Amino acid sequence: VNDARAEWSEDALVAKLRRYSTLIGDDCAVIAAPRGRDLLYSTDFSIESVHFSREMPAQAVGARALARSLSDIAAMGGTPRYCLVSLALAEWTGPQWVNAFYAGLMRVARRYKTELAGGDLSHAAQVVCDVVVCGDVPQGKALRRDGARLGDVLYVSGRLGGWRHRPMPRPRLEAGRKLIGKATACMDISDGLSLDLQRLCTASGVAAEIERVPLLKSASLEEALHAGEDYELLFTAPARRRVAGIAIGRIVAGKAGAVFYRGEPLEPQGYDHFRNRS
Amino acid sequence: VNDARAEWSEDALVAKLRRYSTLIGDDCAVIAAPRGRDLLYSTDFSIESVHFSREMPAQAVGARALARSLSDIAAMGGTPRYCLVSLALAEWTGPQWVNAFYAGLMRVARRYKTELAGGDLSHAAQVVCDVVVCGDVPQGKALRRDGARLGDVLYVSGRLGGWRHRPMPRPRLEAGRKLIGKATACMDISDGLSLDLQRLCTASGVAAEIERVPLLKSASLEEALHAGEDYELLFTAPARRRVAGIAIGRIVAGKAGAVFYRGEPLEPQGYDHFRNRS
Repeated sequence: VNDARAEWSEDALVAKLRRYSTLIGDDCAVIAAPRGRDLLYSTDFSIESVHFSREMPAQAVGARALARSLSDIAAMGGTPRYCLVSLALAEWTGPQWVNAFYAGLMRVARRYKTELAGGDLSHAAQVVCDVVVCGDVPQGKALRRDGARLGDVLYVSGRLGGWRHRPMPRPRLEAGRKLIGKATACMDISDGLSLDLQRLCTASGVAAEIERVPLLKSASLEEALHAGEDYELLFTAPARRRVAGIAIGRIVAGKAGAVFYRGEPLEPQGYDHFRNRS
Repeated sequence: VNDARAEWSEDALVAKLRRYSTLIGDDCAVIAAPRGRDLLYSTDFSIESVHFSREMPAQAVGARALARSLSDIAAMGGTPRYCLVSLALAEWTGPQWVNAFYAGLMRVARRYKTELAGGDLSHAAQVVCDVVVCGDVPQGKALRRDGARLGDVLYVSGRLGGWRHRPMPRPRLEAGRKLIGKATACMDISDGLSLDLQRLCTASGVAAEIERVPLLKSASLEEALHAGEDYELLFTAPARRRVAGIAIGRIVAGKAGAVFYRGEPLEPQGYDHFRNRS
């Protein structure tokens, strides 16, 4: 047992977190419902040895944990408002790690105007964090996955290649909001282009053809097609509609969920938490 | 690796869960904001070896995981609406365990009219579940912890002794709603009466005197004072106000957070996730 940590208590850490937010301290966070908006809820795990390693700076782990859920809000064209951060600590984490984790998370929270509204604290064999983000979007306007139609152009919001080639996650909130009323379907690339495009096509009942993939500096085509956590948006729009994005292909006729790269069938190889187990 | 599980995929399990709810499938759940209500958010971990053991029936684990968060909604006088269930599976869990887990959880969800709205799936060394419940309450009426006043009577909503003496968790949602406009402070007993009463007193800036404790059949006084997860509400109301509950003591003058049992100082011994580590 870490000596420094033996002096902690759950209540002491909660007291510390309350300095970040006036919403912490009761059994629930209480928040006025926004008028004329739909609420958005997104939740993402960040688990040691699955989503991050011990060697990664704790600030980056915290920043990324929140960014993952913010990216889901971006994918719906929404604006994030609040987050709930549940954190189970492991034996190896001391107060320094925890402080740095929250510092990194709060930095992203401030940048994207997302208030810490609560969470839970516990312990586990490995660090497990679950971040929920609550956001909103104009009523009936949320971007969905199931609206892609034959002939639509397929876009991404930026260059691809996976998070290893990007210093800090940048959830595409501004880009998502600008797609409201324009994109026919939208999602974020969290498990790799090949797997996520398959999901979009399955939901929309269409097939897709990728013609070109914009690469992040130093990323390979393989990474751009299959690596996870790009934090870019993948979306479709009718050919004549003007949207900000990089065209990568087209929605084509074919079996629902089928994806092609330059004429050849592309097997999805993105991250599946039950198949890709170490 | 479990053979049966090797045939699973994340998408296959998500497809299964979509049968429980039409809100699953996009990056976020989309929900119309209720008018004239405040939103409530509560989140609770259920972790193997911390909150439950492998030997416990998976149905009970699922039921309890949701009930923990529902109890927080009850403590605020709220009505639950939606839940997000994030689940990290361990090597030892097969499809049978997962199916039973969701069956138990959904049974509680249906009983308390809480719709499954999403979640995340992953894997970890031990099973980790994080359940968020979204509820609502009439605007400005949520029950809080910080309103207890000198002379108020201290109540619990039922007999105490910890969850071991209770077959199934019963979040006190009806009792909580009836306390709106009547209770001056309210919370649920999740970490034991002694620790949770200290928290209520600290938030309210008062002290409390326990005079008697109603025991669950076969529970000891020690368990009723210190055992966790009672799922009962702890609340205060002015002496002349009629409320449904069992009076157990009174708010008294003294240092903020001080708790007495029949005149003697009562040391909080409830569960603290950083102190009570195995």
